Amino acid sequence: MTFKEYESLKKGDSLDLDQIIAQLKYNDQGLIPAIAQQESTGEVLMMAWMNEKSLRETLRTGHVCYWSRSRQTYWRKGESSGHVQTLKSMRFDCDGDAILLLVDQIGAACHTYRSNCFYLEVDGDQVKINAEISEDH
Amino acid sequence: MTFKEYESLKKGDSLDLDQIIAQLKYNDQGLIPAIAQQESTGEVLMMAWMNEKSLRETLRTGHVCYWSRSRQTYWRKGESSGHVQTLKSMRFDCDGDAILLLVDQIGAACHTYRSNCFYLEVDGDQVKINAEISEDH
Repeated sequence: MTFKEYESLKKGDSLDLDQIIAQLKYNDQGLIPAIAQQESTGEVLMMAWMNEKSLRETLRTGHVCYWSRSRQTYWRKGESSGHVQTLKSMRFDCDGDAILLLVDQIGAACHTYRSNCFYLEVDGDQVKINAEISEDH
Repeated sequence: MTFKEYESLKKGDSLDLDQIIAQLKYNDQGLIPAIAQQESTGEVLMMAWMNEKSLRETLRTGHVCYWSRSRQTYWRKGESSGHVQTLKSMRFDCDGDAILLLVDQIGAACHTYRSNCFYLEVDGDQVKINAEISEDH
């Protein structure tokens, strides 16, 4: 079955995880975008990329692992900072080209020590910084 | 200034929007991922792609316009379905490679008539459908 065919399934119907992982639409670098959202508050923390191995590691360990495009290696979130993301739920979208991770974030999600990465906010013809750097580091 | 240099700015500091739009990291197809989140509830609705023109149109009109990779054309969300996304806030992330759109979504965000696109939820070695199709269409 294809993602198009999954559309008509009913709530509670289930599919094989391995099959879905194989069917996800990775880009030509083998990557798929993953959005991390704090489960308890709904705050969108960041967007990064996963490949199949990092996705499977995340499910196996319960700690979010991305693929770093800049460093070209696995990026185990919090490995150096301690700002770990514990996975609460992983969801794929209707056409299999994006992942939503519900997580419990320890500390700041952003490497700038802001709670999330989306701190550049459009305001008319300007972009304003909408968050302070946490002093808690 | 670069995104790296913006990191040390303080809350309330402002930058020129045109400069930021020019500095965003579009991929080799000129696209950047955009996450739509319902402002009132925090629900992550969908992820799609924008190019510079669709981004500027969204800001100008206040209605979200994506670029459809499958149809290779502008995708004015809700143009055929009526399921318009009104823009409440647009935010860029720390390294300028993702956009967060806070929106007010009319009707279902997903083309399957589910309220959001992330209805394929991992459950052990299965993936379960986590939402009914809305009957409100």
